[in-house]
Amino acid sequence: MEELIRYGEKLFDEIEIAVYRNRDVGIHIELNEVSTSAVRQRTVTIVRGIKDKRLGLAIIDSEDKDEIRRAIDEAYKMAKLNNKDEKWKTLPKPGKYKKPPKFDKALKEVSSDYFVELAKRGIELSLEKDKNLIVAGGGGGAEWIESLILNSHGVEISQEGGGAYFYLGFIGRKESLVTPMIFDVDARRNLNLDVENIVENLAQKVKWAYKVEKSRTEEAKVIVEPYALASLLHFALFPAFSGEKLIKQTTPLANKVGEQVFNELLTIYDDPFHELSLKPVIADDEGVPTRKNALIENGTFKGFLWDNYWANVYGTESTGNGIRNSSTGGISIGMHSVVIKNGKESLEELIADIEHGYLVNGFQGAHSSNPDNGNFAVVANPAYLIENGEIKGSTVFMMSGNVYELLKNIYAVSKEQKVVPFYGTTISPSMAFENVRIAGK
Amino acid sequence: MEELIRYGEKLFDEIEIAVYRNRDVGIHIELNEVSTSAVRQRTVTIVRGIKDKRLGLAIIDSEDKDEIRRAIDEAYKMAKLNNKDEKWKTLPKPGKYKKPPKFDKALKEVSSDYFVELAKRGIELSLEKDKNLIVAGGGGGAEWIESLILNSHGVEISQEGGGAYFYLGFIGRKESLVTPMIFDVDARRNLNLDVENIVENLAQKVKWAYKVEKSRTEEAKVIVEPYALASLLHFALFPAFSGEKLIKQTTPLANKVGEQVFNELLTIYDDPFHELSLKPVIADDEGVPTRKNALIENGTFKGFLWDNYWANVYGTESTGNGIRNSSTGGISIGMHSVVIKNGKESLEELIADIEHGYLVNGFQGAHSSNPDNGNFAVVANPAYLIENGEIKGSTVFMMSGNVYELLKNIYAVSKEQKVVPFYGTTISPSMAFENVRIAGK
Repeated sequence: MEELIRYGEKLFDEIEIAVYRNRDVGIHIELNEVSTSAVRQRTVTIVRGIKDKRLGLAIIDSEDKDEIRRAIDEAYKMAKLNNKDEKWKTLPKPGKYKKPPKFDKALKEVSSDYFVELAKRGIELSLEKDKNLIVAGGGGGAEWIESLILNSHGVEISQEGGGAYFYLGFIGRKESLVTPMIFDVDARRNLNLDVENIVENLAQKVKWAYKVEKSRTEEAKVIVEPYALASLLHFALFPAFSGEKLIKQTTPLANKVGEQVFNELLTIYDDPFHELSLKPVIADDEGVPTRKNALIENGTFKGFLWDNYWANVYGTESTGNGIRNSSTGGISIGMHSVVIKNGKESLEELIADIEHGYLVNGFQGAHSSNPDNGNFAVVANPAYLIENGEIKGSTVFMMSGNVYELLKNIYAVSKEQKVVPFYGTTISPSMAFENVRIAGK
Repeated sequence: MEELIRYGEKLFDEIEIAVYRNRDVGIHIELNEVSTSAVRQRTVTIVRGIKDKRLGLAIIDSEDKDEIRRAIDEAYKMAKLNNKDEKWKTLPKPGKYKKPPKFDKALKEVSSDYFVELAKRGIELSLEKDKNLIVAGGGGGAEWIESLILNSHGVEISQEGGGAYFYLGFIGRKESLVTPMIFDVDARRNLNLDVENIVENLAQKVKWAYKVEKSRTEEAKVIVEPYALASLLHFALFPAFSGEKLIKQTTPLANKVGEQVFNELLTIYDDPFHELSLKPVIADDEGVPTRKNALIENGTFKGFLWDNYWANVYGTESTGNGIRNSSTGGISIGMHSVVIKNGKESLEELIADIEHGYLVNGFQGAHSSNPDNGNFAVVANPAYLIENGEIKGSTVFMMSGNVYELLKNIYAVSKEQKVVPFYGTTISPSMAFENVRIAGK
C-alpha cells in the first residue's frame, strides 16, 4: 500500500487509502425453520485525495493494486472538476493508539453450522415452552472486520475484530388472537450467545400479550426498554451531539456545554472501550485515536463530537468520531458505542412500583423524529399495560412530544443493561419516565 | 456449473444453482458537488437443494467452484436438520423463453467519468436556472447484471442486461424560507439520461414551493404524481396480488377475480416487456419464463401472481413471478415491471381543470400501510395547493383511508408516464382522485 500512497502523492497534496475486509457468516430463521445459511465476504477500498483544497473520492469493491491505482486516477479527475473547499485544512496526522482489545479468534473462523445448531436449539426450546408460539423470524451470525487506514502524513493503522449475534422474533396465537411480532437479541464479542435467556424473555412477553388491554389518553408513568429507548434517542437526540450541527447551528445543544439540560439520572458516554462494546476500535475511520467521550454526565451536557474535517473548521481537535459511510465512502461524525449509564433498581422492581402505567418494548416511527428540535411522534408497540405493579396485557399507544422534555422526567433507571446492536451499538438500561402524555388507541 | 449440479444431485433429490454478477458504476452528489465516484462489483451464488421435502439454502459471495461445492454441503447439512415441508412439490421444469431484449452495451463498459460529466452539467444548469437553489443531493450511475439459473430438471438460462439512472434533489432558499427537498429522476435502458428535463421539472417545483400555503381539513380533488402513487400502491395494494396471500387468506382480493373492484380508469399489468421496463427479464429467478400478467383491466381484477412453490401448492402454474431476496437467497412472489396504464389528458390540463385541490409529489410513511386490508395513513409532502387551475404554493397534509376506496374515486389519468425506479420498477402516470378526505396541517 505504501507505493500506492507514493503514487497518489504525485497527483494530490494529501491522500488517504482505507481498506475494509468483511466476513459474515450466519443463518436466517423463518417460521420455525432455518431458512438460509450464508457466508458473505466483501472487500472495499476508499481513496480520498485533496489537490488545492479540491476533494476527490473513489470507492471500489477490491483491494487489487491496479484497481486501487485506477481509483486514485478517478478520484483525481473528480477533484479537478470540483470547486475549492476553502474550509479544508488537512487530513489527520499520526496519533497515539491504545493497545488493541482482545477478541475471541473463533469469531474469525466460525462456520454457519455453529449458528444452525444454535437456531435448532432456540426453536426447540421455544416450542417446548409454549406450543402456541411461532418462531416467525430470527437469525444468528458472526462478523469479522479487518481494516487498514493509511495516509500521506504517516497515519498507518490496521485493526481487526468481530462480534456475534443471535435474535428471535416470536408471534403467539391463541384462539383468534395473534400477538404482534416480539423480538429479542443477544450480541457480544464472543460466541457464548445466550439463547436460553432470549427464549425466556420472549416467552414471557408473548404470554403477557395473549391478553389485549385498552390504553387511555392520559399522563402516565412509562418504562421504556432498551430497544425502544435506543431507537428513540438515536433519531431524536444523538445527532444533536454532532459538532457539524453546532457549526451549522442546527442543534438544540448549542451554547449548552456545562449546563444541566437533562434529569440528573441521565449519563451518556460514547465509549468504544466499554466491556460490552461490539466495536472496540482504537482508531476511527480516518485513523484518529478513539477515546471515551463524555456526552451527558448526571444531566449536564459535556461537549460535542468531532471528526477531523469539522474539528479543523471549528478550530478544535477530532474526538475520534469520524465514521465512514460504506455506500458513499464519505466521512461524517458518528458514534462508536453509546453507553447509557445504568441505575440501581431492577426492571422487575420498576414495574412492581407502578400503580398504573405502561412498559414499552418497541417504538415504531422513531426515524421520523426531528433532531434539530427534538420533536418526535412514535407508536409504542409492543407495549404493555401495568396495573398495581403487574403486567395486565399488551396494548398500543401514541407518544409524541419533545425528547428534551421527556428526558427531564426520568425518575428511575434499571440496573440491567442490554446491548442493542442496531443503529450502531447502544448499551442501554430501561428508563422510567413520569408524566408522559400518551394517546390511547 | 453442470458438474456442480451433478455433485448436488448425489446429495439432494433436486438442486438449483443461481449466480448473479453485478457491476455498478456511479457517482453521488452532495451540496452542489460530486462527492464520490464508485465502481462496485459483486458476485453472489445461491444454492437451493431439496432432500425428502426438506429444504436447504446457502448463499455465498463467490462463483468459485470449490466454494460453491462447500455451499452445496452447507445446504445439505441444513436440509437434514429441517422439518419436512409436506407442501413441497418440485423445482420448475424447463420452459420456452422469449427472445432476449436488446440493451445498449455501453451500459456494461461505461466509466464513472460519464456520470461525473453529467453531474457537473446538471449542477451548472441548476444554478444558472435559480441562484437560490442548492443541489442538496443526487447521483447517477449504471448497473449491469449477468445471471445464470440452473437446476437438476434441465433449466439453464443465462441473461444479461442493465440500466442507467440520474437523479437530483433540490432545496430552495429565499429569505427565511427553506423548501423541503424535492427529487426527480430519469431511468432508462441506455445512457441518454435527460438531465435538462430533470432540472426543468425541479426548478418549477421549487419555484412553486417558495410560497407556503395552508391546507384545510376537507374533501377535495387530489392529483397524485408518479412517485407518490407508486410508493402508496407498492405498500398498500400490490402485495394483495400475491397468490401466497390468497392461500393464506390475507388479501382483500380473494374471491374477487373477474369482479369490478376499482374504477374503470384503473388498469395495471406486470409487464417486463414494456418498452420502458428497466428489467426486461425473459425468466424469473427460478428460471420460469416471464410474461405480461394482467392484474387490473378497466377496474376488473384479473388474477393473482405466482412463484413456483405457491403455484404448486394451489395447483396452478407459476406466472413467472419468483423473485429472489438478495440477502437471504429465498424466493417469494414479486413483480418485475408494474405498468399503470396512462390516460388522455396532460398533467397540465388536469391541474388547469381544478378549481380547488391539491397536487402531491411525494408521500411519507407509505411503508406503514396495511396491504391485508388496504388501510394507509401518509403525509403528503412535497404537495401543492391548486386554486383556479393554478399552483398557489407548497403545502403539507395528512391523507388516511383505504386504498380500495381511494381507487374507486379516480376521475382522470394523465397521458404522461414516468419510470419510478424504486420499490422494483413502476411505470406510472399521475392520477386524479375526487372526494379525498385530507387533514390540513
